[in-house]
Amino acid sequence: MKLKTKDLLTLAELTPKEFVELIDYSIKLKKELKKGGNKPILKNKTLTMIFQKPSTRTRVSFEIGMYQLGGYAINLSSNDMQLSRGESIEDTAKTLSRYTDCIMARVYEHELLDKLSEYANVPVINGLSNSFHPCQTLADFMTIKEKKKFKGLKIAWIGDGNNVCNSMIYGAALSGIDMSIATPKGFEPDKTVVKESKKSTNIELTTDPFVATKNADVVVTDTFSSIHNSNTKRIKKFLPKYQVNSKLMKSAKKNAIFMHCLPAKRGLEVTSSVIDGSQSVIWDEVENRLHSQKALLASLIRA
Amino acid sequence: MKLKTKDLLTLAELTPKEFVELIDYSIKLKKELKKGGNKPILKNKTLTMIFQKPSTRTRVSFEIGMYQLGGYAINLSSNDMQLSRGESIEDTAKTLSRYTDCIMARVYEHELLDKLSEYANVPVINGLSNSFHPCQTLADFMTIKEKKKFKGLKIAWIGDGNNVCNSMIYGAALSGIDMSIATPKGFEPDKTVVKESKKSTNIELTTDPFVATKNADVVVTDTFSSIHNSNTKRIKKFLPKYQVNSKLMKSAKKNAIFMHCLPAKRGLEVTSSVIDGSQSVIWDEVENRLHSQKALLASLIRA
Amino acid sequence: MKLKTKDLLTLAELTPKEFVELIDYSIKLKKELKKGGNKPILKNKTLTMIFQKPSTRTRVSFEIGMYQLGGYAINLSSNDMQLSRGESIEDTAKTLSRYTDCIMARVYEHELLDKLSEYANVPVINGLSNSFHPCQTLADFMTIKEKKKFKGLKIAWIGDGNNVCNSMIYGAALSGIDMSIATPKGFEPDKTVVKESKKSTNIELTTDPFVATKNADVVVTDTFSSIHNSNTKRIKKFLPKYQVNSKLMKSAKKNAIFMHCLPAKRGLEVTSSVIDGSQSVIWDEVENRLHSQKALLASLIRA
Repeated sequence: MKLKTKDLLTLAELTPKEFVELIDYSIKLKKELKKGGNKPILKNKTLTMIFQKPSTRTRVSFEIGMYQLGGYAINLSSNDMQLSRGESIEDTAKTLSRYTDCIMARVYEHELLDKLSEYANVPVINGLSNSFHPCQTLADFMTIKEKKKFKGLKIAWIGDGNNVCNSMIYGAALSGIDMSIATPKGFEPDKTVVKESKKSTNIELTTDPFVATKNADVVVTDTFSSIHNSNTKRIKKFLPKYQVNSKLMKSAKKNAIFMHCLPAKRGLEVTSSVIDGSQSVIWDEVENRLHSQKALLASLIRA
Repeated sequence: MKLKTKDLLTLAELTPKEFVELIDYSIKLKKELKKGGNKPILKNKTLTMIFQKPSTRTRVSFEIGMYQLGGYAINLSSNDMQLSRGESIEDTAKTLSRYTDCIMARVYEHELLDKLSEYANVPVINGLSNSFHPCQTLADFMTIKEKKKFKGLKIAWIGDGNNVCNSMIYGAALSGIDMSIATPKGFEPDKTVVKESKKSTNIELTTDPFVATKNADVVVTDTFSSIHNSNTKRIKKFLPKYQVNSKLMKSAKKNAIFMHCLPAKRGLEVTSSVIDGSQSVIWDEVENRLHSQKALLASLIRA
Repeated sequence: MKLKTKDLLTLAELTPKEFVELIDYSIKLKKELKKGGNKPILKNKTLTMIFQKPSTRTRVSFEIGMYQLGGYAINLSSNDMQLSRGESIEDTAKTLSRYTDCIMARVYEHELLDKLSEYANVPVINGLSNSFHPCQTLADFMTIKEKKKFKGLKIAWIGDGNNVCNSMIYGAALSGIDMSIATPKGFEPDKTVVKESKKSTNIELTTDPFVATKNADVVVTDTFSSIHNSNTKRIKKFLPKYQVNSKLMKSAKKNAIFMHCLPAKRGLEVTSSVIDGSQSVIWDEVENRLHSQKALLASLIRA
C-alpha cells in the first residue's frame, strides 16, 4: 500500500481508512515473517536513523525491520553528525535526501521534525518527540486489533497526558474508539489534539482513574518521567492515585488488556502484578513495533 | 576497472588516465543506480570505516555505497577500538586485514594513514586527513565533468589553502585544468603539492581573489575553520576579502559554477545568495560523493 | 550442526564431541569462504551485540561473520540502550527476544550474562566477561588444530590466570589436552574450573614458568592488565619472571607455537622477538575468531 502523506510526524496525516489499512498490512507482514520471511520489497532502499536520544526498541525495530524487507538502515547518533557541530537542519536534510530513501528521527523538540520534513525530499518518520510517538500508536492499535475488534471499544489512559498519550488520542480518533484520560490537573494531553479528535470520537478528560477505567477494554499507562524531566517532586503528583494496580484493573472490563510502551518502572506507574500479569500484552506491543514500522516504511518509501 | 595503486591517500597515486576513467566510471554507476540499482559487484566484500572525527557525508555515503554494491560497511569510532586503549596502529592494521577487504579512515594526522597503509594488506582510503581529502576531489571533478568539458577550464580557489585545496590541486594536475588559488599570506596550500602539480598544469598562487576568479569556470571555497582550529582570530584574517559573494562571482565567467564541500558557514566564507543561488552545484557535489566513492571502492577492492 | 545448549557462556555447556565438531565446522567454513563465499545459512537472521566495553576484534568478527552468512548484526553500546537508564536486564532480554535471533554481550560482570540467558528466549553468547572468554578459546583451539593434532599435546599458560585462561582450561578439558599454568601466587585461574577440568585431563598449577613450558607444544600468555585493573603495582608482580621471551620459548618443544589473544603489550607479557617471531600464530588466532564464531552462530541459531 502507498500513503498519500510524505511524512509521518503525528498520525494526523492519515485518513481513518489509511490507518486501518496500515494496521491490517502490519498484521499481514507479521504473518508472512513467521511463515519464513518477508519479500525484499525495500531492496536497494535505505533508511537513515537520527537519534538525539538513545533508544533500544526504536533503534532495534527499525534497523531489523529494514533488513527483513531487504533494505538497510544507518544509525546516526547526534555525535556522529555535523548537526552537532553547527550544520543547519536545512543542509542536513538536503544532504541526507541525496543519499537515502527515508529519514527516521528521535528528537527532543518536535519542531526539529517539522524542519526536517520541510527540507527533506524523502519521507520523514517521527521516532519519538516531546509531543508525539506515532510509531508506538501504530504498534498499540495493531496489538489491540490482534486481541479485539475496534468497534465499540473504550481505552482508559491513566497518568501523564504525554507524547504517547497524544498519539494514542489520534489513534482513537482514526479508529473510532472511545478514550477516557485520567491525569492530575496540569498533566492533561495537548488541547489541540483533544479538540481535533473529539470531532471523530468520544475523548473524555478526568482526574479520576476509576472514571477512566469504567467499562474500559484497554488500560494504558506510561512512565511518569517525561522526555525532559524525571524528578521525584514530579512523580509525587501521580502517586499513589494514578498507579495502575490490581484494584484499578478490576474496575475495568473483566477481559481488559493492560498496555505500556516501556521502559516501565514497576512500583511507580504500574505494579508488577499488573504489568507481569495475565492481562498484560506488553511483549506483543514491543514486538509489534517491528511489524507496524515495516508496514509504515513500505508504505512511505516510493518504489 | 582496477587501479594499480593499493591505497588512495592523496590522489597522487593515480595516473591522469586512471583519474579520468575513475570519474567516467562514477558517472556510469550513477546512471545505473538511477535506472534501478547497481549490480552487486562487491557482494561478500566488507569495508571497515574508522572515524577519529565524526562525519555525516563521509559516513553515510560510504556506508550506503557499500550496501548499494552488495557489500557491507562497518563503522568504528575511535572509542569502539582498542586503538583508543593503546593498541598499536600496526596491530590494528594487521587485525583488520584478517577480517575486512578495505579500510577507510578519517583521521586528524595524515601520518596515521601512511602507517595504516604500510601495515594493512588491504586497500586503505583517506576519508579526510589534515593534509588531503581525495574523495572530495573525486566527487568535485565528477561534478565538473557533468557540467562542463575538462579541456581549457580554469578553477579559482578562494580562501584557505587547506586539505581540500591540496587535493583539488592534484585533481587539476591529473585532469590538466588550470587553477588559481587566492589565499591570505600564510594560508597557501602545501608547497610540495603545488610544485609537483605545476609540472602538469598551470597552478597560480595569489593573494587577490579577483585575480583568481578572472576567466574562471569554477569558483570554490571551503570553511575558514581548519580541521584543528576554529577561532575568531583566525577567521578575521579571511574576512571580508576572501568571502565568495555575488560581486566576486560576477568577476568569473558568466556560466561559472560555485562549489563548496560542506559544511558551510553562510555569511563567512560564502554568502547565502551565492551558495543557495543558481550557479551553486553543492547538492550535486554532495550526491557525487556517493557515486565516486563507489567507483573507487569497486576499483580498489580486488575480486 | 546444532548444539544442544541454548547459550554459550563458559564452554562448559558443550560435550567434548560437540567442541571438536564445532572446531571442524569452523575449519570447513573458513575453507568455504576462501573458495568464494559461504552459503547464506543465516539469511533473515539477526544478531544483537551489546558492548559494555568496546572491542575491535569481537565487534568486527561478529558483525562481518553475520554478513558473510547472509544475516545481519546490530551493534548496541551501553549508551545506546535503555539498560543504561535503569531498564532491567529482564525487560531488555525479553524485548530483544521479540526482535532478534541471538544476543552476544561483552560485559564486565559475568552475572549479567547469566541473567540475560535466563530471561532471553534466544541464544546468548558470551563475547567476553570478567570470568570467561569462550569465543577466544574456540578460535585458539581451531588454530591449534590447524597446526597440530590434539592428541598428546601440552599447553603452557604463562602469567595471569584470568578469564581467557579459565576458558582455555575448559577447552583443554573438552579436547583432552594437558595444560600447565604458571602464575604468581594469588593469580591462579578459577578453582572450580580447574577442579572440574581435572576430571577430564591433566591441569597443573605452578609458579614456575619453566615447569609449565617443559615439553609444551603451545605457549600462551595474555596481558597482565585485567578487565578491571591496569596499574603498574599489579604488573610488577608478573615481571620479569612471567614474561614470555626467547629463553622461555626455547624451554618448550622446538616446534612449539606461541599464542596471544591480543591486544598485546610488547615488552611486558611478551617480547617483540617472540610475538612477532616465526613461532607466533597470533594473526591466525585473530582471523579464526571470525570463522569459529560463524560456526558457533550457525550452530546456535535455530532455523
